[in-house]
Amino acid sequence: MASLLRTTARMRLSSARSIIRPSSRLPVPAFAAASSRHMASAATAAATPDVGEQPFFEDEPRGPIIKTEIPGPKSQEAIKRLTKVFDTRSLNMMADYASSFGNYIADLDGNLLLDVYAQIASIPVGYNNPSLLLAASSPQMASSIINRPALGNFPSHDWADILETGILSVAPKGLNQVFTGQSGSDANELAYKAAFMWKRRQERGGPDVDFTPEEMSSAMNNQAPGAPPLSILSFKSAFHGRLFGSLSTTRSKPIHKLDIPAFDWPQAPFPALKYPLEAHAEENAKEEQRCLDETERLITTFHHPPAAVVIEPIQSEGGDNHATPAFFRGLRALTRKHGILLIVDEVQTGVGATGKFWAHEHWGLDDPPDMVTFSKKAQTAGYYFGNAELRPNKPYRQFNTWMGDPARAILFRAIIKEIERLDLYLYSELERLAGQYPKEVQNLRGKGQGTFIAWDSPRRDEVLKKAKSVGINIGGSGERAVRLRPMLVFQRHHADILLEGLEKVFKS
Amino acid sequence: MASLLRTTARMRLSSARSIIRPSSRLPVPAFAAASSRHMASAATAAATPDVGEQPFFEDEPRGPIIKTEIPGPKSQEAIKRLTKVFDTRSLNMMADYASSFGNYIADLDGNLLLDVYAQIASIPVGYNNPSLLLAASSPQMASSIINRPALGNFPSHDWADILETGILSVAPKGLNQVFTGQSGSDANELAYKAAFMWKRRQERGGPDVDFTPEEMSSAMNNQAPGAPPLSILSFKSAFHGRLFGSLSTTRSKPIHKLDIPAFDWPQAPFPALKYPLEAHAEENAKEEQRCLDETERLITTFHHPPAAVVIEPIQSEGGDNHATPAFFRGLRALTRKHGILLIVDEVQTGVGATGKFWAHEHWGLDDPPDMVTFSKKAQTAGYYFGNAELRPNKPYRQFNTWMGDPARAILFRAIIKEIERLDLYLYSELERLAGQYPKEVQNLRGKGQGTFIAWDSPRRDEVLKKAKSVGINIGGSGERAVRLRPMLVFQRHHADILLEGLEKVFKS
Repeated sequence: MASLLRTTARMRLSSARSIIRPSSRLPVPAFAAASSRHMASAATAAATPDVGEQPFFEDEPRGPIIKTEIPGPKSQEAIKRLTKVFDTRSLNMMADYASSFGNYIADLDGNLLLDVYAQIASIPVGYNNPSLLLAASSPQMASSIINRPALGNFPSHDWADILETGILSVAPKGLNQVFTGQSGSDANELAYKAAFMWKRRQERGGPDVDFTPEEMSSAMNNQAPGAPPLSILSFKSAFHGRLFGSLSTTRSKPIHKLDIPAFDWPQAPFPALKYPLEAHAEENAKEEQRCLDETERLITTFHHPPAAVVIEPIQSEGGDNHATPAFFRGLRALTRKHGILLIVDEVQTGVGATGKFWAHEHWGLDDPPDMVTFSKKAQTAGYYFGNAELRPNKPYRQFNTWMGDPARAILFRAIIKEIERLDLYLYSELERLAGQYPKEVQNLRGKGQGTFIAWDSPRRDEVLKKAKSVGINIGGSGERAVRLRPMLVFQRHHADILLEGLEKVFKS
Repeated sequence: MASLLRTTARMRLSSARSIIRPSSRLPVPAFAAASSRHMASAATAAATPDVGEQPFFEDEPRGPIIKTEIPGPKSQEAIKRLTKVFDTRSLNMMADYASSFGNYIADLDGNLLLDVYAQIASIPVGYNNPSLLLAASSPQMASSIINRPALGNFPSHDWADILETGILSVAPKGLNQVFTGQSGSDANELAYKAAFMWKRRQERGGPDVDFTPEEMSSAMNNQAPGAPPLSILSFKSAFHGRLFGSLSTTRSKPIHKLDIPAFDWPQAPFPALKYPLEAHAEENAKEEQRCLDETERLITTFHHPPAAVVIEPIQSEGGDNHATPAFFRGLRALTRKHGILLIVDEVQTGVGATGKFWAHEHWGLDDPPDMVTFSKKAQTAGYYFGNAELRPNKPYRQFNTWMGDPARAILFRAIIKEIERLDLYLYSELERLAGQYPKEVQNLRGKGQGTFIAWDSPRRDEVLKKAKSVGINIGGSGERAVRLRPMLVFQRHHADILLEGLEKVFKS
């Protein structure tokens, strides 16, 4: 079997390679041809890459194609069928992934939209990215899919290599260890569990102090001291997931939380900054200090003492709320002062979205966060840590059957290799639009944060709907924020298409 | 791109097909040849398939091969390397999956073990199963890996088809809907959330009664009435996962729960039956009634009222504890009587492990469970349900970014096609061994439950360790149970190897 796999490996590798180079010799993909034919009907024609800008995908369509209303007749039929077996009330668009490419998402009716939402910020380097297809077609991938290991018990002999050349090669500074999981919520809950075990270890007096019989028996009854009444402090409007522990730290919208039992854990106010930040520096600083003060009050007085503070570098689901590096440095100092942990939730901000690989690199911390969680664009999930004390004192305390997914870790490794930096063109052009359409673009934010850009719109849902009709797929967050989450392969010519389309919507 | 994918599809399909048929024409795989060469040193020679028994894998090794102590020198080196970046204290064996095949797991030192633990019961149809390799090498799989959708928002146009021909084709009777997730713990928590939303809807008076402003604001503060003090009732020794909600229903061992805050939820006693069941029918019936009575008392009086009862058909992690169909029918009647839901956790028992596709099919229920959760052998996870009232009244209440994984759903579909029924040979032979070695094999259980077999051993950990030295990988559960979790491709000749190996261990 081993030799068979190797033979198939070679075959598949060479055929996959032929897909990506030299791409110019390949037949023009079906939709690229369609795109050329339909340029006249395309919503925008500003699709020619700038001179000197080498496109990431030579065969990418030159612009959106709108052939029908969205959803068109074929999509409507498919939605009807899916509705019989699957909840489609949150359905945004029925996608045809085989026909999607690069920054463009296709549907069944021949529509092709520039996608700046990217599966809720989780597609990093374009649909059907050839390098990822190569990785996904490799024998290592096939083996990791069909022979999924219980990683904690029976890791594959190449697991160290996959970690070192992938997930750990982009570990945030100071955090050289990882515990892998399955999703963003899972990653956060794993980090919370590590925090609780660490906190009780401090209180107990070290790793070698044994659990008492009372702890052992009370834990089995879900009671203190074994199941301690500790908490995780999060911030108003935060989103950290929807499992029971992570949902207890999520404070985004009632619809996420209603009817679900929750832990009695504290929430601090997140700074409500005024934009542009430069024009409101003094009052913003005051606002951040108020939030830090309230955080400190909760850390020291809340009836269920926090073991950790969890925070997003930019509150994403909660409406793209930013804070300054000074605020985050203050939070690091506060948590350190009071002997609790700082968990940075980079599920949405991580993996290049803000112009640095991890958003917290913008903060200039001397002392790194204790844990950083990731998922989405990484395709795999987990938390990074550095302090050896965060590894539980006994095996099987932080454990589950799969403990992550080597297949997705291999994909993340391929993604890392694909990641390129973006330029800052998009933000300044949006500033121009904000000046022109002050009612449409309010509180523009995300300067210097790559493509992690958002603004508020008094008619947000209408804007999102109309954007589709001009060929742009775009998302919302919070009550009225429009959020851009393009892929990392979003280039200047894509930005032009987006800006032109937005202007059409604003004028309408 | 679409046409490219199609071309690659054809290429890959034909090359993958050549792998599986006709297998007799293929070169002998490296380890099969090694197996023949090393028969003399193999731990057992009882490897010839019975006349008339068609092996699932013609090229499967004929028996275990033991070349070194386990871990051998190469594995020790690899473990040392992995330990630098990954917690290896729960490591059982460093595996070489490329060299594993069918029922045999390989390590780096050339050892090949008959695997009756199978990644904690999560490998259904053998390592490197050719049909799964075919599915894993398909363009549909590659696309689903590199274009992972946010299923709730942008499902793929073939998602209905993947569900209908896969996950839903094996839906338990009466449950024709599914909500997909990522792991067993996740599946259970999703089911708990559905239960809480359902319960509150009943209390509220229907789907059209709106949330009150007080519910909306209190939910954001993790307080009642928005975050209601409801509970999930589980059983002593149960294992339902390790996330915060699922861990609150897990009652297996302190090491799973210590230091983690938990919900104050009730636990009922699980019947402690005597084996063999036939010999203790009367006292077992009394014990089961006692447990049902106590369950009813908790349902009606516990200070945080249960919205649902969750139970495993066979408590697995808790020590392979069985109950009779009468007990489960009683539980269905009780939950119905008191207007709460019955969730059956089939994460470990499902997908053919007990001789029926779902273990609860053994119970002869007229009235199906409200939800059935699955994961592990299914490779994908989620909960089945039938009652339309279990679909939350508004979108985005049961939602997350990925909401499952089409790649794994495609794999499950391939697994379903591979599944074959097993015979009952193994259990009767173990009964014979239990008669011969009454101190080694106590409370043998699992009759009529396929290969879901366990017994208690006063020197359990020693037995597991020695089993490796005779070429068998085997797991434990609870305090002293030896648990068999072979794959569904475990055949009579594998059973012979297992039985012979066990006898050697018992004699030692």
